[in-house]
Amino acid sequence: MRYVEEPHHDGSALYVPDQEPALGARVTLWLRAPRAAGVTGVRVRAVHDGEPRYAEAAPAARRVPGLGRGDVWWRAEITAVNPVTPYRFLLATGRGQAWLTAAGLVRHDVTDATDFRLVCHEPPPRWMRDSIVYQIFPDRFERSRPTRDLPDWALPRDWDADPVIPSGPGTAEQFYGGDLDGVVRRLDHVESLGADTVYLTPIFPARSNHRYDAATFDRVDPLLGGDAALHRLADALHARGMRLLGDVTTNHCGDTHEWFTAAVSDVDAPEREMFYFDPDTGDYESWWGVKTLPKLNWNSPRVREGMAAVLTRWLGPLDGWRVDVANMTGRRGADDHAHDAAAYLRAALGPDAALIAEHNHDASGDLDRGGWHGTMNYGGFTRPVWAWLRGPDLDLDHFLGVPGGVPERDGHATLATFTTFAAHMSWRSLVHSWQLLDSHDSPRIRTVTGSRERHLLALGLQATLPGTPMVFAGSEFGLTGVNGEHSRTPMPWNRPADQDLSTLAGYRALLGLRRAEPALRHGGLRWLHADADCLVFARETEEETLVVAARRAPGEPLPVGVRMEGVHDAADGDEIPGDAPSLSVWRVTH
Amino acid sequence: MRYVEEPHHDGSALYVPDQEPALGARVTLWLRAPRAAGVTGVRVRAVHDGEPRYAEAAPAARRVPGLGRGDVWWRAEITAVNPVTPYRFLLATGRGQAWLTAAGLVRHDVTDATDFRLVCHEPPPRWMRDSIVYQIFPDRFERSRPTRDLPDWALPRDWDADPVIPSGPGTAEQFYGGDLDGVVRRLDHVESLGADTVYLTPIFPARSNHRYDAATFDRVDPLLGGDAALHRLADALHARGMRLLGDVTTNHCGDTHEWFTAAVSDVDAPEREMFYFDPDTGDYESWWGVKTLPKLNWNSPRVREGMAAVLTRWLGPLDGWRVDVANMTGRRGADDHAHDAAAYLRAALGPDAALIAEHNHDASGDLDRGGWHGTMNYGGFTRPVWAWLRGPDLDLDHFLGVPGGVPERDGHATLATFTTFAAHMSWRSLVHSWQLLDSHDSPRIRTVTGSRERHLLALGLQATLPGTPMVFAGSEFGLTGVNGEHSRTPMPWNRPADQDLSTLAGYRALLGLRRAEPALRHGGLRWLHADADCLVFARETEEETLVVAARRAPGEPLPVGVRMEGVHDAADGDEIPGDAPSLSVWRVTH
Repeated sequence: MRYVEEPHHDGSALYVPDQEPALGARVTLWLRAPRAAGVTGVRVRAVHDGEPRYAEAAPAARRVPGLGRGDVWWRAEITAVNPVTPYRFLLATGRGQAWLTAAGLVRHDVTDATDFRLVCHEPPPRWMRDSIVYQIFPDRFERSRPTRDLPDWALPRDWDADPVIPSGPGTAEQFYGGDLDGVVRRLDHVESLGADTVYLTPIFPARSNHRYDAATFDRVDPLLGGDAALHRLADALHARGMRLLGDVTTNHCGDTHEWFTAAVSDVDAPEREMFYFDPDTGDYESWWGVKTLPKLNWNSPRVREGMAAVLTRWLGPLDGWRVDVANMTGRRGADDHAHDAAAYLRAALGPDAALIAEHNHDASGDLDRGGWHGTMNYGGFTRPVWAWLRGPDLDLDHFLGVPGGVPERDGHATLATFTTFAAHMSWRSLVHSWQLLDSHDSPRIRTVTGSRERHLLALGLQATLPGTPMVFAGSEFGLTGVNGEHSRTPMPWNRPADQDLSTLAGYRALLGLRRAEPALRHGGLRWLHADADCLVFARETEEETLVVAARRAPGEPLPVGVRMEGVHDAADGDEIPGDAPSLSVWRVTH
Repeated sequence: MRYVEEPHHDGSALYVPDQEPALGARVTLWLRAPRAAGVTGVRVRAVHDGEPRYAEAAPAARRVPGLGRGDVWWRAEITAVNPVTPYRFLLATGRGQAWLTAAGLVRHDVTDATDFRLVCHEPPPRWMRDSIVYQIFPDRFERSRPTRDLPDWALPRDWDADPVIPSGPGTAEQFYGGDLDGVVRRLDHVESLGADTVYLTPIFPARSNHRYDAATFDRVDPLLGGDAALHRLADALHARGMRLLGDVTTNHCGDTHEWFTAAVSDVDAPEREMFYFDPDTGDYESWWGVKTLPKLNWNSPRVREGMAAVLTRWLGPLDGWRVDVANMTGRRGADDHAHDAAAYLRAALGPDAALIAEHNHDASGDLDRGGWHGTMNYGGFTRPVWAWLRGPDLDLDHFLGVPGGVPERDGHATLATFTTFAAHMSWRSLVHSWQLLDSHDSPRIRTVTGSRERHLLALGLQATLPGTPMVFAGSEFGLTGVNGEHSRTPMPWNRPADQDLSTLAGYRALLGLRRAEPALRHGGLRWLHADADCLVFARETEEETLVVAARRAPGEPLPVGVRMEGVHDAADGDEIPGDAPSLSVWRVTH
């Protein structure tokens, strides 16, 4: 438990009581210094208007139960001078000076890239702070009725008899006929998992089952029940105190979209500027060269205003948006409007709507800029969990887009990845980002882990680490899938053999634990131990401390030295047992 | 020499032959893989419009002399899609996958923060590529004549008899009377050092000896000889093929500046918007609260256009600018125009003028944005050199602004600092940044190191590492100083006892070596060895390889295993001897 000997700070309320500072506010910062760290002096370096300033910290009385009751707490005040004020700690220790940044303790100089960040942008809506998100791909979740008037592009499939086509012809056209009233029918199931926010992949009319090629942003696809069905779903959710998020493509639209058909049919149409047409050839830019997905040109005020109008007009039934390909939105060659676009859309949406960016590799450069509240954290969560818990027989040809399959990595590498990604964003962005094990764009976690035990271990990390859990519908039944398309399995409501009820019980228990324990949602994060097969961390508030141990393989018991009361799959005691795979959670009792 | 076993890439011409790619160009990248690294496959990941794309590399025949003649060279092509295209390498090795970024080889996922950067912004002027800069503080360099008409603020001092006042009353007012015609007289000296670019701290009229409180940007201070003297100096330099840089405050001006006096005297003056006046109190924002330095408001078109007019009007005599407090320029509270201001000024200056940003802590976030060509690299060069080579008796109360004095750090920490700062900027920004041992704003390197031997060792690093050496006038004589003001010593032209001719000879030899050896200016950088007391690296071009060893304390000889011919303070052989302090340079001969 050597990490318990290191000084610690993170952006949680335990260390930064004012979680929503106004620009110009004086903000208290706390640093905890275990006596073994030998800290004799603490200063805060904060960058004000581009220039570092130093503030003295002083030891201050503070009674925090849990681990390290003898720790010294240092207190400092800094001013939140800028919308994002970077800060770090300069520690005097018996071994000389050291910096503490969000990447940890270093004894040499480092750039500001991993400084802690005090963020004064308008805070995300408070309802997001406790969310658990449940992702639904509408064509595959539940049908309220047989589909009438099947469109010309659709390839009808039998819900329970026809397997999903994973690639090649028919992939985007296979049509199972799920709809929004179908979702309404299953809200008891969703709520039973502990989820309180439903995120629907696109619901606008299109020429594919995924609907990322919207023909309009102005009405809900009649195949899904139309606008009225959306309102019924929203009303049913809101009546339960739950939320509903949509999915919008700000990077492109479909080639049958009214904006694009107007633009392509008349070179003088006002919509022409909304796309990237080559003035010589008439060809146009599209997402990854897919011509059905013409790329929007954010130089155009029509795009800015048009997209803002789309996002705001659905507020009411919707409580916010997941933004598709946010990483590419507004970026093309010499153009980079990505940050402006995000901030513009957020300002248009106002303070109560969520705005989450899809970003497959590294969103950190796009967060904390007054735009996206968070990202789908594939880079900082999904990949490290996969690489630590991949099954021995897994055979995938890429790692969420990275060629070469899913690597096997040990606990040190896993912790290093968690830490480095978290260190490049604010605490606020981290906790509002979606920690996902899988999605409609990825293989299923069950396929990746190859076993129920490792699947639930992955879920345990999702349920206990900072960040907003996002569950892809179906994974709670232990469904499998080798790629995004293949994972879009029609839900097995009528196929009991496809329902792993033990996995389902695990989801209810672990997500329920997250709902029950404020420390899992709002506590700080201290890593206590990492070896190849075991990761241990504490989630700490001023009131309580939970210790979480994830083991992928058996090992020696680890003494903790304080009494702990088992909360989940853990006996009372003062050590972490060596059994595996296991996810154990304790409450520190003294 | 374990680093020789690691795969390597950097942004130098050896690895990126097209050093000035146009936007959209196809660019060849090379990666060198020593056989011991066990590399079996190489892909390049480049981020295009926000999304990673992978390109296959293949082994290709390449004959590069020097170290590692049996290395495998992998070749790939990527497209320079954006003004800055981040890229990294994905290596398949016998031990699994690894990433190679500018921070080195890692076996876990990392953010894009340290990706290599292919930069398509307009390249810096070519003359900068080989520069050695010599910094002159005009009041202290040389007098052409006694000063007439001493201004009211000035406290006259005797050049050779009166010691510099290091702090307190008189610091900014002590007046020694150096002038620009004085500089002309000493150009033989400047040129003898190998320097080819003179950088003058401010020369506009002001009410201090440092002149950072300019009263106007429209004429040269008559105390320095006025506009005519500037032209005489520029002509003399240009006749020698040398260059001249000015120093401008884009963050603020003096409170006697015509812009400010107009603004302060009339709330309706058009100049009022150029500053940050409090509408209630009439108080105004200033640099660090120093009221003589009112801060410019970059929201104002008058500031943008006014500063661009200032910077361009002096082109001709001047070949570019060093920008004071560039880190704060345009930043204040919710305003952040820093990148826009830099890009705007650079565009106004055109392709032949240099634009270097003062930045005391970490400029990396402000580089590679089409603005500043480079920074004064205190963070990535000065501090690590100081901490490695500080003298045992040094007693300073801060470390270039960091409280707590100058720490003593070992070679590992020194290398880590060099590497992490370099990894957060493009190769282009690194080599165009000024590597300085000291300046008019810092203690002298002689004071920091406490000995001629360590001083010359520091100089050796400056002369042999990538980046543009900047020499602060007087340090070539071994002058001392405990802070910036104290270091502004009148040059000891008439004080032979204050001229350490052995140090002077070292400057001529080491900077001369840099001028003589293209590899020291344009070669790649491979670190070969680091221990507490010894740093070894190679500078490599397609034609030649130089090996440089810096030792601060004696140690065991290090075998290199190839024949090397001594170029500077080194005998021929195949090992690095253990003597210290020493700076040795070899040419690899087979």
